[in-house]
Amino acid sequence: MKKTDKSELLYGRLPLLEALKAGRRKFLRVYLRESRVLDPENLALWEALQSQQIPVVRVSSDWFKQRFKDQTHQGWAADLSPYPYVEDFFKHLSEEGSSTLLALDQIQDPQNLGSLMRVAEATGVRGVILPKRHSCLVQPSVSKASAGAVEHLPVTLVPNLVEALKKLQKLNYWLVGTEASASTSVLDFEWPTRTVLVMGSEGEGLRRLTKETCDFLVHLPMKGQVTSLNVSTAASACLYLLARYQQRT
Amino acid sequence: MKKTDKSELLYGRLPLLEALKAGRRKFLRVYLRESRVLDPENLALWEALQSQQIPVVRVSSDWFKQRFKDQTHQGWAADLSPYPYVEDFFKHLSEEGSSTLLALDQIQDPQNLGSLMRVAEATGVRGVILPKRHSCLVQPSVSKASAGAVEHLPVTLVPNLVEALKKLQKLNYWLVGTEASASTSVLDFEWPTRTVLVMGSEGEGLRRLTKETCDFLVHLPMKGQVTSLNVSTAASACLYLLARYQQRT
Repeated sequence: MKKTDKSELLYGRLPLLEALKAGRRKFLRVYLRESRVLDPENLALWEALQSQQIPVVRVSSDWFKQRFKDQTHQGWAADLSPYPYVEDFFKHLSEEGSSTLLALDQIQDPQNLGSLMRVAEATGVRGVILPKRHSCLVQPSVSKASAGAVEHLPVTLVPNLVEALKKLQKLNYWLVGTEASASTSVLDFEWPTRTVLVMGSEGEGLRRLTKETCDFLVHLPMKGQVTSLNVSTAASACLYLLARYQQRT
Repeated sequence: MKKTDKSELLYGRLPLLEALKAGRRKFLRVYLRESRVLDPENLALWEALQSQQIPVVRVSSDWFKQRFKDQTHQGWAADLSPYPYVEDFFKHLSEEGSSTLLALDQIQDPQNLGSLMRVAEATGVRGVILPKRHSCLVQPSVSKASAGAVEHLPVTLVPNLVEALKKLQKLNYWLVGTEASASTSVLDFEWPTRTVLVMGSEGEGLRRLTKETCDFLVHLPMKGQVTSLNVSTAASACLYLLARYQQRT
């Protein structure tokens, strides 16, 4: 994990709780809204913070309003170390056994990135690969949109997505990209045991070079008038179809 | 469809385009931002409006800012008749043949409701059942979040969801609810030919009576630390697993 002097202001009950459980970030200070009633859910977070001797400061509603405007924060925020990207990600990948990774090609929207992380974590994805440039990074709004799931996920930033994908091929992964014009339906697809699911941005899809690097391209059948799905709902369909396929074989 | 004097202010290029294609709403007037460049995508909507002789008024950026603040509207809005809920929904359902419906138990968030509608339309869901009370209704923000898909979908509002579900059982539908504590995994589930997928709100899940009315309860396996999925990503997984099951059988 990268060391840095900067800190980040995370917000929302679940992101704080999951970051604390994951133990990958250093908490400097927690802010709790004065008027926050400590019902069982909130009390659980309060007690977990106490047991780790993390200072909790009570602040006003205005304090939150100034910093988060209309974003939902449930009266919780924390100063803590930045999101812990995994730097030696590829070193820790074994070359055999069943494993699924997710590679994201230039996802721009924090809400979509958070939803993708939440589905990835729920379906047991081993790690997520994000390009350093032209991509939304893991910021507090992403952790919030992931319901804190991203705090548990190994995520790595790569300077060049195609190079990273080629590295994964050498580690015996097969690259499966989603592409509306692909001839293979994801419903018929025989998933490899070691899969990197590669998904593009909602507007643009996969970039040409990314697409050409993939071993397989699949499409999600669309039966209606509208021609595309949100990227996180598309990823959810793929990852659960993959889970079903692997369970049956 | 219900007749009313009220009109609604729909916004965004796709909601307008899909509402126009669906032909279920009466357009009174369209507003187009003066600075909107008519690239091919936007020109297509402009020409469709012209061919139907719908008046288009050019307005300033400020006009949009005052009405929509930070919401993305792509420089398009329309005064048009309210969303056309289907009033004689149950009458038009046949009693045989393969068919999937979606029933939503108190979804509150327009973004989630829109995403659900988009996935439903994409997977060929025949219609969506919403309770009249304690539920987000189909408002312009829902059409926007659905990328316009809801403009094509038959949606009905019911005074009592449980009564509506019982009516569907009499029409030879089987009710399949999703519930985290259910013993059957959705990965193993043998879907009925005529299914009503019943999904609850993100926080609360299905209400007790709704749950008790279901013929089957299934859970989505969760392999990570976080214990729930966003309702639209969960619905996407279910509906594509159902599509795969029906294709194979």
